[in-house]
Amino acid sequence: MPSVTPPRGMRDFLPADKARRERVLAVIRERYRAHGFDEIETPVLEEYARLHSGIGGDNEKLAFNVLKRGLDADAIRAAADDPAALTDLGLRYDLTVPLARFYASHRGELPTVFRAIQIAPVWRAERPQKGRYRQFMQCDIDIIGDGTGRAEAELLVASLDTLDALGLTGGTIRVNDRRALEWMLASFGFTEQERPGVLITIDKLDKIGPTGVADELRERGATPSAVDAFAAFLQRPQTLEHHPYGERQIRKALPQGAPDDVVASLVALGDAVAAARTDAEVPLQFDPFLVRGMGYYTGTIFELAHPSVSYSLGGGGRYDGMIGRFLGQDVPAVGFSIGFERIVDLVAGREEAASTAIVLVHDRDVPVAELVALKAALVADGRRVRLEQRTKNLKALLERAAADGYTAFAAVSAGATVGGLDIRPLS
Amino acid sequence: MPSVTPPRGMRDFLPADKARRERVLAVIRERYRAHGFDEIETPVLEEYARLHSGIGGDNEKLAFNVLKRGLDADAIRAAADDPAALTDLGLRYDLTVPLARFYASHRGELPTVFRAIQIAPVWRAERPQKGRYRQFMQCDIDIIGDGTGRAEAELLVASLDTLDALGLTGGTIRVNDRRALEWMLASFGFTEQERPGVLITIDKLDKIGPTGVADELRERGATPSAVDAFAAFLQRPQTLEHHPYGERQIRKALPQGAPDDVVASLVALGDAVAAARTDAEVPLQFDPFLVRGMGYYTGTIFELAHPSVSYSLGGGGRYDGMIGRFLGQDVPAVGFSIGFERIVDLVAGREEAASTAIVLVHDRDVPVAELVALKAALVADGRRVRLEQRTKNLKALLERAAADGYTAFAAVSAGATVGGLDIRPLS
Repeated sequence: MPSVTPPRGMRDFLPADKARRERVLAVIRERYRAHGFDEIETPVLEEYARLHSGIGGDNEKLAFNVLKRGLDADAIRAAADDPAALTDLGLRYDLTVPLARFYASHRGELPTVFRAIQIAPVWRAERPQKGRYRQFMQCDIDIIGDGTGRAEAELLVASLDTLDALGLTGGTIRVNDRRALEWMLASFGFTEQERPGVLITIDKLDKIGPTGVADELRERGATPSAVDAFAAFLQRPQTLEHHPYGERQIRKALPQGAPDDVVASLVALGDAVAAARTDAEVPLQFDPFLVRGMGYYTGTIFELAHPSVSYSLGGGGRYDGMIGRFLGQDVPAVGFSIGFERIVDLVAGREEAASTAIVLVHDRDVPVAELVALKAALVADGRRVRLEQRTKNLKALLERAAADGYTAFAAVSAGATVGGLDIRPLS
Repeated sequence: MPSVTPPRGMRDFLPADKARRERVLAVIRERYRAHGFDEIETPVLEEYARLHSGIGGDNEKLAFNVLKRGLDADAIRAAADDPAALTDLGLRYDLTVPLARFYASHRGELPTVFRAIQIAPVWRAERPQKGRYRQFMQCDIDIIGDGTGRAEAELLVASLDTLDALGLTGGTIRVNDRRALEWMLASFGFTEQERPGVLITIDKLDKIGPTGVADELRERGATPSAVDAFAAFLQRPQTLEHHPYGERQIRKALPQGAPDDVVASLVALGDAVAAARTDAEVPLQFDPFLVRGMGYYTGTIFELAHPSVSYSLGGGGRYDGMIGRFLGQDVPAVGFSIGFERIVDLVAGREEAASTAIVLVHDRDVPVAELVALKAALVADGRRVRLEQRTKNLKALLERAAADGYTAFAAVSAGATVGGLDIRPLS
């Protein structure tokens, strides 16, 4: 007999967990919709070839692939040296590849500037570990077709508003621009060929520190003079200083001579977010060493930090080149992904607004018709109602109901009427 | 380059469709919760062995199976004569197998009588045809742990209330009992061995008619005297007559001498539904030839009919033996599944309550900070807001926005303020 636990790295959700997840999703959906985003849905399966076209980066290797239907013995033997021949479909490992396909397929039916919401599970065959799952939810918003800074501003304002609505105020968005990173690395003297590798190392700065970064770059064999210049830059005291977001902070955090257009677009983003928000200080922080892993980013990148946790709660960036690869035509795009699995844990304590939920504890002999009529009348009156047959241990029964979110109870004997119920608070 | 359409038999949902689907799901969720049901979630993947343990009937053959990770050439060659060795997981083809596993895994954490909601997609590698999809939503409610007729009554009342809330009033639930069917077939003289096959033929009565059923039973080689007796019974005029649901109808529709306990439980179900509802006539119809395909049903079975369509909108029944197979202990269970994909088409015309959704049509030169500030102020005021840069064809732009559900627009030039916006209705 097979095990009754879910497959490795995947989870069942019991009622309390599921209810909390749905409440959080409803808030996210509602806020993003208010900001003019529209939800779409794609199938969980995509063609194998599309999932393995290079966009997914390291995630491509983690895809769960679906066995072709109707393979015979010869076809299986022939696939021994080409396992990809065994599969034609795979479970998506992110929502970006499906979005690009969706947009290429439906562009004519979508607004010129398309603001998409995707709230859906993805699958990755990762080695299971704490906080990493093989099936997990992603909540992405993307703006396709707007190459101006309006798109970044709309994304960040909508995301900050959504966090506010979830009670997660006080978050900060760390901002950088891939063009600033590229320019900075060039200015230190890293060659174009070695820059992608240098970015991978810089991405570890939080974990291994400035010395660790310099050491790793030397091990990688990066241009020594460039490593020295970069190491010296990392040691500057002002690198770690806090300044309110704005031109002064950005100029100070970068080497001298940073390109004006990149700085101006970063500054404008801060001005826009400040104009749309009522925070005392704009909740942005320029971080010249923010990298974000994916290879497809081309401009602004961002990552959401919150004082209650040390890890990031989401992030995103501009990826102007990618949609075009599917469409054969350049289309600007920028996206932001909320780390739903992390956020849902942070809002764990916040319960739904208590409407009266009543347990009807009935004697064994109450006719079924009387019970369902009482229940229907209370439901019609706006209550949530559960029937429970009385047991010897009434206390345990009521405690269980309270734990399940019920707030009141009434005892029901044969002949009871709605008007005659003695509804008492639970607790 | 791979195709940009979704995989065969699967669908993308554009914003209007997705919004409608989410609205319908929210109503279903809310109503079932009010009736004391609790939503759970399981992973979309289940172990291959569990998906192929016999419960799934014909659907087992339609499962999408997942290729094992890390197979080498030898392992693939060795699997040539045993393709099952290539897979360890599969996409669920229904929500009943996962529910049984979930219950077996979490029984100690659930109430004694567990009322479950499952709203989730399932996958079947069927030959695509009109109205049949390879990924589709199922909406199931199940009551586990209650062997009394209360469970059936709660299921049907909750489902009828949900249909009312969706605007689909006037539905009828066709009711039968597998025990009545078994008794009826025995009374005609069908042997125990041939009865499952006879049920498969009776299930086609709507399609092939009484003569077709008799012909097919003869072709199957069923006991000739039993076929003759059954054929004669099918020709009785009262078989097709309409009677209000109740003992008289049930007794008239069955051969004489039907077992009292089965008739009494069918009658009690009608009394209970009538007590909980305000319909002029109880919305049940006894159908002695209703079979429902799955082999696991043990008692009451039901199917939802609606005057607006010829096909069933859902159904279910009691399956007392099945959960026990996973648990090694008998647990009564009864379930009802709403045909979501069919219902969502029927409620297509019903739009969400109109809150003001505004398009801000802005000149190209309005600073981003001004735009996002205007937008944020309107969103904070409860509006849904979309920014659109003015184009030459303003009419087309506004028509597009109206089609997307926007109800008002305002032109925005540089320096505009919320108070100064001239908000006009769209259309």
